[in-house]
Amino acid sequence: MSDNENDTVGSRRAFLSGAVAAGAGALTTSVAAAQTADPLITEIQPWAQEFGDGVDAARYGLPSEHEGDVIRRNVEWLTADTVSSINFTPIHALDGTITPQGCAFERHHSGAIDLKKDDYRLMIHGLVDTPLVFSYADLERFPRENHVYFCECAANTGMEWAGAQLNGAQFTHGMIHNMEYTGVPLRTLLEEAGFDTAGDLTGKWVYVEGADASSNGRSIPMEKALDDVLVAFKANGEALRKEHGYPVRLVVPGWEGNLWVKWIRRIEVTDGPVESREETSKYTDTLDDGTSRKWTWAMDAKSVVTSPSPQAPIKHGTGPLVITGLAWSGRGAINRVDVSKDGGKSWETARLAKPGEKMALTRFYLDTNWDGSEMMLQSRAMDDTGYVQPTKTQLREVRGLNSIYHNNCIQTWLVRSNGEAENVEVS
Amino acid sequence: MSDNENDTVGSRRAFLSGAVAAGAGALTTSVAAAQTADPLITEIQPWAQEFGDGVDAARYGLPSEHEGDVIRRNVEWLTADTVSSINFTPIHALDGTITPQGCAFERHHSGAIDLKKDDYRLMIHGLVDTPLVFSYADLERFPRENHVYFCECAANTGMEWAGAQLNGAQFTHGMIHNMEYTGVPLRTLLEEAGFDTAGDLTGKWVYVEGADASSNGRSIPMEKALDDVLVAFKANGEALRKEHGYPVRLVVPGWEGNLWVKWIRRIEVTDGPVESREETSKYTDTLDDGTSRKWTWAMDAKSVVTSPSPQAPIKHGTGPLVITGLAWSGRGAINRVDVSKDGGKSWETARLAKPGEKMALTRFYLDTNWDGSEMMLQSRAMDDTGYVQPTKTQLREVRGLNSIYHNNCIQTWLVRSNGEAENVEVS
Repeated sequence: MSDNENDTVGSRRAFLSGAVAAGAGALTTSVAAAQTADPLITEIQPWAQEFGDGVDAARYGLPSEHEGDVIRRNVEWLTADTVSSINFTPIHALDGTITPQGCAFERHHSGAIDLKKDDYRLMIHGLVDTPLVFSYADLERFPRENHVYFCECAANTGMEWAGAQLNGAQFTHGMIHNMEYTGVPLRTLLEEAGFDTAGDLTGKWVYVEGADASSNGRSIPMEKALDDVLVAFKANGEALRKEHGYPVRLVVPGWEGNLWVKWIRRIEVTDGPVESREETSKYTDTLDDGTSRKWTWAMDAKSVVTSPSPQAPIKHGTGPLVITGLAWSGRGAINRVDVSKDGGKSWETARLAKPGEKMALTRFYLDTNWDGSEMMLQSRAMDDTGYVQPTKTQLREVRGLNSIYHNNCIQTWLVRSNGEAENVEVS
Repeated sequence: MSDNENDTVGSRRAFLSGAVAAGAGALTTSVAAAQTADPLITEIQPWAQEFGDGVDAARYGLPSEHEGDVIRRNVEWLTADTVSSINFTPIHALDGTITPQGCAFERHHSGAIDLKKDDYRLMIHGLVDTPLVFSYADLERFPRENHVYFCECAANTGMEWAGAQLNGAQFTHGMIHNMEYTGVPLRTLLEEAGFDTAGDLTGKWVYVEGADASSNGRSIPMEKALDDVLVAFKANGEALRKEHGYPVRLVVPGWEGNLWVKWIRRIEVTDGPVESREETSKYTDTLDDGTSRKWTWAMDAKSVVTSPSPQAPIKHGTGPLVITGLAWSGRGAINRVDVSKDGGKSWETARLAKPGEKMALTRFYLDTNWDGSEMMLQSRAMDDTGYVQPTKTQLREVRGLNSIYHNNCIQTWLVRSNGEAENVEVS
């Protein structure tokens, strides 16, 4: 990892002293020309001569009206109804790593329910000494933790199994968000109910269920439940939004989003998995030979270039270009991301904005110069387990074409000479 | 610092195995009682029998309607008009460290202006080889960085000089927010304009100015300008909100918020400070002897208990109680926070949710048991320079009672036996 950090710093320095300086010439020429001719500089503008608006402090703030297209979007043909629907984070328009709740992807199975804090109850029962019921106020009395984690739907990128279909990073990779959660470790609540966390955990599971009509029940092995699962009530500092499980949801770091049960009402300690609908008919992985495998909870290392991309074309012509994207791994921390401009024939190591953190989004940048020729842009993530993000061909050799979930293949954008980009397959 | 980390982990373990276990008895009794009698558990609730709402993906998401009081608030008598106004972050209701933009405090001097990306220009001129004008699209072509920083108004807690006045952490300490910024280092843009960052910086300053009518011009010494100042266009991943300087603001880590010029339009390299209105008649510190001192840019180490507090009283009675708050330093990272229940006579070391990061908010927790007796709650922050947050008495010895800015005194909340809290002074 330190080798990689050196590489990253090294390539950045080379960029600042060499590549950017070269590109900077062109940039300087074009912007310096604007200085004398541009009325936005030579004339006093209206916004410098009048008061702007006051801020209505009695209302929760919203984005600038000029950013009206940076919103979640759905794909109408993908789900039957808005109450059994999914929408996608506008990752092509975001930067950094935090996802604001207001544009964070959301999936529900029977609609987002309206559940007041005063009406909230969480029951822990089954193989425990003392079955307990917690109110929201009870939960606030236990020691809390804060962690930034990504939440990715198992079906993210799922349409790509059958070929390049959805044209935009928001739609191919936008079933993901990354927030700072505040909550109580599930371990603490299980101990409160008298479960012996130091005892024999063999065969022990928890079955978790939401308060909505779908209930969305899932089984989680006890080792994971005691490791890092949170019963969370805040995201990015504030209360969970209604569609994210207000007032309380489960956070299952690194594992598929369907396990992050919203409006969580019940946690039962069992002596085996329940084999619920949500883990048998759904959320299993069809293989090339027609059989399916289950219990594939962890989201493997993955990445995507968010800009340039089909919804974020290059508009500034040749010269300095920032290629950027996101990488993540459900098994650890991202420690390297490579970017290819030629569909995987050659690779350059990208700069990570910060050292990768466990089970959280990592932002990468490749600061480069574009000569205007066509690019087949790809990114390839690696995590600290040594895992390398696979190609689509490698995945299909095992999984075939009929899977839905857990597609973490390398994504390809064809960037044309006019700067427009398209979702394509590399043969 | 490692000593402190050990202390923190140690006290947490003691809490989990000792203090909480003791308190847990009471908690278990009360919540177990709810299990059989509570119709919220025994009866199937409406939200489990019907579809919830679909999510309107065409609109930016808002908080739950049940969180309508978690908003910025202003103090009507404090400023003359909404276009020359300030509003306060609801820190009493938040947890974790990230502040969502929609409730992040905001101060403007002539209103929040409406400035489109296409109309945006930034000029860098003065003592540079090549004066340059950058469009928004130009800025996006330079290498970006991501950092979480707090922004605190120099006047935060300013009313406390004259005594305990505003009753609530939102009003005494809410002129602060903490966001993940994405932007271009100012150093990069100065180098682009041909400023010799490796040359003699003695006496060199930058004068920075916004595009609004107030222009809010401020002088910044070149050493700081080249150190960590960002020309930023994203906060928490998305575009800056209008009231936070859309589309581009300056980020001056650790230094008073007035320097974080919004809608930044001009950066002039000068051979001295401008001594503008905003740094002579304002943003200087009156001392006890009636003179004033200036250039007090850095925000010293500070902390406040956010809950319990006047707007967040204790409602659950005696037993386990989470005391939590925020700590920060403009000169480095927080490495320890102590909490007192008796007005500073005795102190307990709080648990930091994460190791402190430079110039960013740190969340602290004291997981304790409350016997119902009156408390004089205080918190005391320390940073990695060795600085310890002072008492109000210590500050007044130097600054007197007539200052406005840079009040980083220890705050006291009187918590009564009924759980209600009040802003008080400790004599």
